[in-house]
Amino acid sequence: MFSVLPGFRDFYPMDCAKRNYIFQQIRETGRLFGFEEYDGPVLEPLELFTEKSGQEIVSQLFSFTDKGGRQVAMRPEMTPSLARMVGSRASSLKRPIKWFDISELYRYERPQKGRLRSFYQFNADIFGEPDVLADAESIALLISVLRSFGLTAKDFHIKFSDRRLWSIFFQLNGISAADSSNILTIIDKSDKESMANDVEKLNALGLDGVIFRQKIDEFISAKTVAEIHEMLINCKLFSSAKPLVSQGIKDLSRLLECIEMFGLQDYMTLDLGIVRGLAYYTGFVFEAFERFGKSRALAGGGRYDDLTKKMGYAELPAVGFAIGDVTLTNMLLEKGLIPDLDKSIDAFIVFDDEFKKEAMGDVILFRSNGISSEFSIKQTDTHRQLKMAAAANAKVVVIYLGDVPDVPGSVLVRRMNDRKEVLTARNGLLKTLEELLK
Amino acid sequence: MFSVLPGFRDFYPMDCAKRNYIFQQIRETGRLFGFEEYDGPVLEPLELFTEKSGQEIVSQLFSFTDKGGRQVAMRPEMTPSLARMVGSRASSLKRPIKWFDISELYRYERPQKGRLRSFYQFNADIFGEPDVLADAESIALLISVLRSFGLTAKDFHIKFSDRRLWSIFFQLNGISAADSSNILTIIDKSDKESMANDVEKLNALGLDGVIFRQKIDEFISAKTVAEIHEMLINCKLFSSAKPLVSQGIKDLSRLLECIEMFGLQDYMTLDLGIVRGLAYYTGFVFEAFERFGKSRALAGGGRYDDLTKKMGYAELPAVGFAIGDVTLTNMLLEKGLIPDLDKSIDAFIVFDDEFKKEAMGDVILFRSNGISSEFSIKQTDTHRQLKMAAAANAKVVVIYLGDVPDVPGSVLVRRMNDRKEVLTARNGLLKTLEELLK
Repeated sequence: MFSVLPGFRDFYPMDCAKRNYIFQQIRETGRLFGFEEYDGPVLEPLELFTEKSGQEIVSQLFSFTDKGGRQVAMRPEMTPSLARMVGSRASSLKRPIKWFDISELYRYERPQKGRLRSFYQFNADIFGEPDVLADAESIALLISVLRSFGLTAKDFHIKFSDRRLWSIFFQLNGISAADSSNILTIIDKSDKESMANDVEKLNALGLDGVIFRQKIDEFISAKTVAEIHEMLINCKLFSSAKPLVSQGIKDLSRLLECIEMFGLQDYMTLDLGIVRGLAYYTGFVFEAFERFGKSRALAGGGRYDDLTKKMGYAELPAVGFAIGDVTLTNMLLEKGLIPDLDKSIDAFIVFDDEFKKEAMGDVILFRSNGISSEFSIKQTDTHRQLKMAAAANAKVVVIYLGDVPDVPGSVLVRRMNDRKEVLTARNGLLKTLEELLK
Repeated sequence: MFSVLPGFRDFYPMDCAKRNYIFQQIRETGRLFGFEEYDGPVLEPLELFTEKSGQEIVSQLFSFTDKGGRQVAMRPEMTPSLARMVGSRASSLKRPIKWFDISELYRYERPQKGRLRSFYQFNADIFGEPDVLADAESIALLISVLRSFGLTAKDFHIKFSDRRLWSIFFQLNGISAADSSNILTIIDKSDKESMANDVEKLNALGLDGVIFRQKIDEFISAKTVAEIHEMLINCKLFSSAKPLVSQGIKDLSRLLECIEMFGLQDYMTLDLGIVRGLAYYTGFVFEAFERFGKSRALAGGGRYDDLTKKMGYAELPAVGFAIGDVTLTNMLLEKGLIPDLDKSIDAFIVFDDEFKKEAMGDVILFRSNGISSEFSIKQTDTHRQLKMAAAANAKVVVIYLGDVPDVPGSVLVRRMNDRKEVLTARNGLLKTLEELLK
């Protein structure tokens, strides 16, 4: 007896149908927004991932040495492969580059509710557009994907923030760039850590932890553009960086304007507490959350203008997001938003040995005319065949009867939902079927 | 600069569109035949594969020890995972079990034309049906999938044979079961090996290699049921196994009968030289080949009634096949059978800053009504926007004009293929678009 590795999944047909339904909705929404699908290799050179995320990431990877002595890893995220693909053809790709993918990713983490070792992620990214309208388009796509499943502004919202506002805040408080990055990490993890822990970490950076923790909390408590402006004005070094502050406020206002033009303001919650864990974000960052109940995180993204350059390619402004399948699927299931995907078949063919030849010929005819068709492979009586037709959720049943007085070589077609029956000659069978299945 | 591992592929949007087109045709044909899609994990315990194929397979695997000390491997084929999935739920799964999948597989082999280290395979299998009609249904699906791409009986054929006929042949020639299996391997590889090599291998089994090689060639030269029957009758031990021979001939005739009922006889070529390399086949085996030119192998399959039992589960008769994507895609490309999959978009929205608000509101409206829509994220002049619309293959262009005398707040919609233009008020825009896109 064999078992599945921890954190990996079998997709039996019913699970696979749910997975494919979710993929299908995503693909369709991507298409509506003019995004093109791409994919990269499941296995990549290890250095592709360590280059972007540092050696620390190796402990979370399915990495190994292949039989040719190469250090390789199963992809834990798409962004490095994407940056390689876009970067290496940056000069020939038609702009704007609006791409999406649906890919399976692999992380050696402790499996738990909502987190597996292999999972799917939908990534959508826009390269080559620095304008805030690209950020808004990215957020609009994220919202539209979630809406395509029947989720509404009552079910989820997008918390958003701007890394640049934090840069300004740090600068106005006399914090160095290196420390800024450490403090962002503290903020990112702060809801998982105790207050004392945060204070200790801030102290370690040579700050007065208690006071600075309070300043951070105050800044995060600002929930409107005006409140954020007010806070920044009140920082001690404000006068030295006035133009920076007005640029930051202008950017934020422009994003909100674009969101309003799209009519999506009901989905948005300004929340400076959202800073995103990954170091490579350079501007707006956003995360989608379940609005009530478990408040689970559904998706996250932001602007990352430096990545291709950091990886050795041409500089390309970029903004994008990722949705994971595990939490989303759980949420859709709980809300009853995955439709009935039971197997069904258009036609089930019932025959006895006398009509096998005709029946089998017709099965192929039906199928090549787009009518999904099945029959009992095992030779069995009519009663059992009718039971199989019911079990297969057949829309119509086709029963070969042989000659009845007025219809030579006649076939009975029964529509199962309303029990409507039509008796037809074999040469009118396909047409009858098509009418009953309309 | 980073590169892709040898034998792995990037799927840029144009390649991804081709891949998805092929997947889509396969899914649709699987649906028409009443097969349900499943999937299994990319990573499995190593023993799942060594159990089925022996330790020799390890040299061809991407196998490693994971961070939890487990011996694991990236799947080189689906059948072991499939047998596990079916076997472990054999008592609860509704019969017949007709499943397919489209999965990426990984083999550490020398990459060459038509063979990569990562590739997709379409597998379709029927479990629980011992009747030859299941073999015919499996072959019919294989043929229909290839036909769905526009390939015809002029492009490909299915060479088929029966492992049981070979068993009978060996028995009638006094060959032991153990030697039989070795000889099948020699036959399977014989077109890659020299005659002298074959003879030497047969000598090593204690046979007169020259004579037995000739006997094999004679048997393979039989191209009809009658010729095969004739050959078996002429074997020296025939009288001892007369009933076996008539059963073998009957099975073969019945398969051909079923194929004829399906009207697929033009696709079939009886060829005893097809024995399939894998040890687990127990009955009919078949391979699809390009009919002319390079005669590339496109697919292979057969009956394997013992596998679930061998793996420790209940006995379940099974028949199935696999199509690889690499050779198929190459062949379709060469024959010009992959349709034009260039990106296109329904509507491209052209506006200047004055109408940005209206235009952006409408973009979201169009998209939520199923009309794929794009616009220039970068603010630019009308001329450039129209060029972008052409580059995006837009079907219609929507141009915001502002007030013209008779149509307040009017918008011009231009259909690109026939240059038809309609001037409409904004509140009639969606309807106009839907009509022009019909």
